[in-house]
Amino acid sequence: MASSTKKSVLIVGGGAVGAIAALNLEVGGLAHVTLALRSNYNAVNEHGFDIKSCDHGRVQGWKPSIIRDSIPDITKESLPPYDYILLCTKNIPDIPPTVVDLVTPALPRINTHTTLVLLQNGLHIYRPFLESHPQTLVLSAISMIGSEELSPGKIIQDEGDKLIIGAFPNLNTNPSTSAAKCFIKMYKNGGKTDCKLGEDVLHDRWRKLVYNSALNPICAILGLDTGRLRLAADGEVVEHLVRPAMQEIVDAAKANGVLLDEGVVQKMIDADPLQSYLSPSMLVDVKKKGNFLEHENLLGEPLREGKKMGVEMPTIKMLYYMAKGIQWRTMEGRGLVEIPPKDV
Amino acid sequence: MASSTKKSVLIVGGGAVGAIAALNLEVGGLAHVTLALRSNYNAVNEHGFDIKSCDHGRVQGWKPSIIRDSIPDITKESLPPYDYILLCTKNIPDIPPTVVDLVTPALPRINTHTTLVLLQNGLHIYRPFLESHPQTLVLSAISMIGSEELSPGKIIQDEGDKLIIGAFPNLNTNPSTSAAKCFIKMYKNGGKTDCKLGEDVLHDRWRKLVYNSALNPICAILGLDTGRLRLAADGEVVEHLVRPAMQEIVDAAKANGVLLDEGVVQKMIDADPLQSYLSPSMLVDVKKKGNFLEHENLLGEPLREGKKMGVEMPTIKMLYYMAKGIQWRTMEGRGLVEIPPKDV
Repeated sequence: MASSTKKSVLIVGGGAVGAIAALNLEVGGLAHVTLALRSNYNAVNEHGFDIKSCDHGRVQGWKPSIIRDSIPDITKESLPPYDYILLCTKNIPDIPPTVVDLVTPALPRINTHTTLVLLQNGLHIYRPFLESHPQTLVLSAISMIGSEELSPGKIIQDEGDKLIIGAFPNLNTNPSTSAAKCFIKMYKNGGKTDCKLGEDVLHDRWRKLVYNSALNPICAILGLDTGRLRLAADGEVVEHLVRPAMQEIVDAAKANGVLLDEGVVQKMIDADPLQSYLSPSMLVDVKKKGNFLEHENLLGEPLREGKKMGVEMPTIKMLYYMAKGIQWRTMEGRGLVEIPPKDV
Repeated sequence: MASSTKKSVLIVGGGAVGAIAALNLEVGGLAHVTLALRSNYNAVNEHGFDIKSCDHGRVQGWKPSIIRDSIPDITKESLPPYDYILLCTKNIPDIPPTVVDLVTPALPRINTHTTLVLLQNGLHIYRPFLESHPQTLVLSAISMIGSEELSPGKIIQDEGDKLIIGAFPNLNTNPSTSAAKCFIKMYKNGGKTDCKLGEDVLHDRWRKLVYNSALNPICAILGLDTGRLRLAADGEVVEHLVRPAMQEIVDAAKANGVLLDEGVVQKMIDADPLQSYLSPSMLVDVKKKGNFLEHENLLGEPLREGKKMGVEMPTIKMLYYMAKGIQWRTMEGRGLVEIPPKDV
């Protein structure tokens, strides 16, 4: 059972990001973690996680306080509400279930207790909750972690866990920073990670998009990690694809009132050490055939925001429709779309 | 030995295109074919070709008059010059050897006898021969065949062989149409194929680029055949990627004085029957990891021609640099580029 001084945290999704968050929270000693797994439940239940982490070292056979193979339905199971629910799944609005449908059973019917923390990419991912759970405080967690699940339960983290936490705007809850600060204290308590308050969530999310909207899809489409991408064709791929895509995000942010720091494009191009040869998540998803892409949040949403303000985004637009094509291919592979039979 | 009434034809490259050309020429009875093979030489030498063709039916254990595992050096081997050399390899100027280097040993030192026929894609592929072999008559062969080599020597042709033959411009040879007409007679003689004279090579090559510059790279990048591409994301991929790319080729052609027929874009979008689910060659190349792409001729050359005339080609430009990235990946896979070691 959770000690009364600990906060109860439900983490949804125990892949490369969720597992490290679970480990880090339990190492900190201020959280009692329930981790809801899907595809890797059996592996983790049997053998625990096998984690090789630049923050935590080698951790073998480890499990958080509670693991589950589904999201708890707290009403049916008569469970007390969680203090925090940390969403670490992919956020893919074009493929059901939506994150709202996923998390609703774990929230009280009318929720003012549980704070949602969206450790997911993209610009306006809180908006669906404004409609479904208008009284729920929703925090943004922006992660700069580099980690990958090599096989079920086997995780390698080769870039330090750095989180920026802040409250998404919500006129109903008038969010103060106290819930964010409490989460940060809990997350930092193990002394292994960098977790800080972001005063301007929208700014921080646009800033991360500079990396994610460009490097994620381009690496995925070309089958190159971020190191190789910089080396490819003597840097021409960076100059003619990555840099223009990043600049379009900077321009769209600016048109939406978000001024990013001078030089952010070059900083993001150089963000990953070249010789680390890191694979952004979308490249991992494409390589693991069958994984869906988060292109609606990474490309579609900034494209729509830019378009509203009249910003031309030809590179982002092309990447968006390419990602749509790849998503359709995955859907067909999974039997989610039917096509006319081949003429023989 | 070749009968004296037959023309001697050397075909370089016996993949999906060259093998069907060899078969068709020998079926016609007016040509004595020498076929130079590389990767599939052993398979064909041992078992012959296994061809399933919509033009020729099932042909098993078939070989042309002569097969070779290399290009003949006619000087060293004291061979008479060929009447025609038909180049059916990929044309990839960024990866050695160049087609000029490839074919030079099979041409007389000062050649006025042998007619070169380039059965290859792209706009200005004759230009390197103007410098290296200024007296050589070079014909353009534009093929609309749909065929694929499933495994070495095993070929399936599911779209009829249609050739358009014409002479590339050359101020030295003042090419008449007689060599082209002679080749057409020889190629059509079996009655199985459609082979006709193209009076305007440049027009015909730009026209084929409408298909090749758009569908080839987009299918390759997305991993979708032309049927699935039309179905993907309810047609959005066609509308936002394929149609703009094709229109840019039409615009660049126009700026270069080549007026393509009204409606050519829609015709090319619909060119392959949807339910045939045909794979353009570049998609086949990407799937068979390790094959190089013809992006310099299909994308680079029209892009440069468009740029000269001030035509904006944002879609073609992006496709070009994406193809460059994929080419670099293939080069790295083949050990043709070195990268700094991974930091551990």
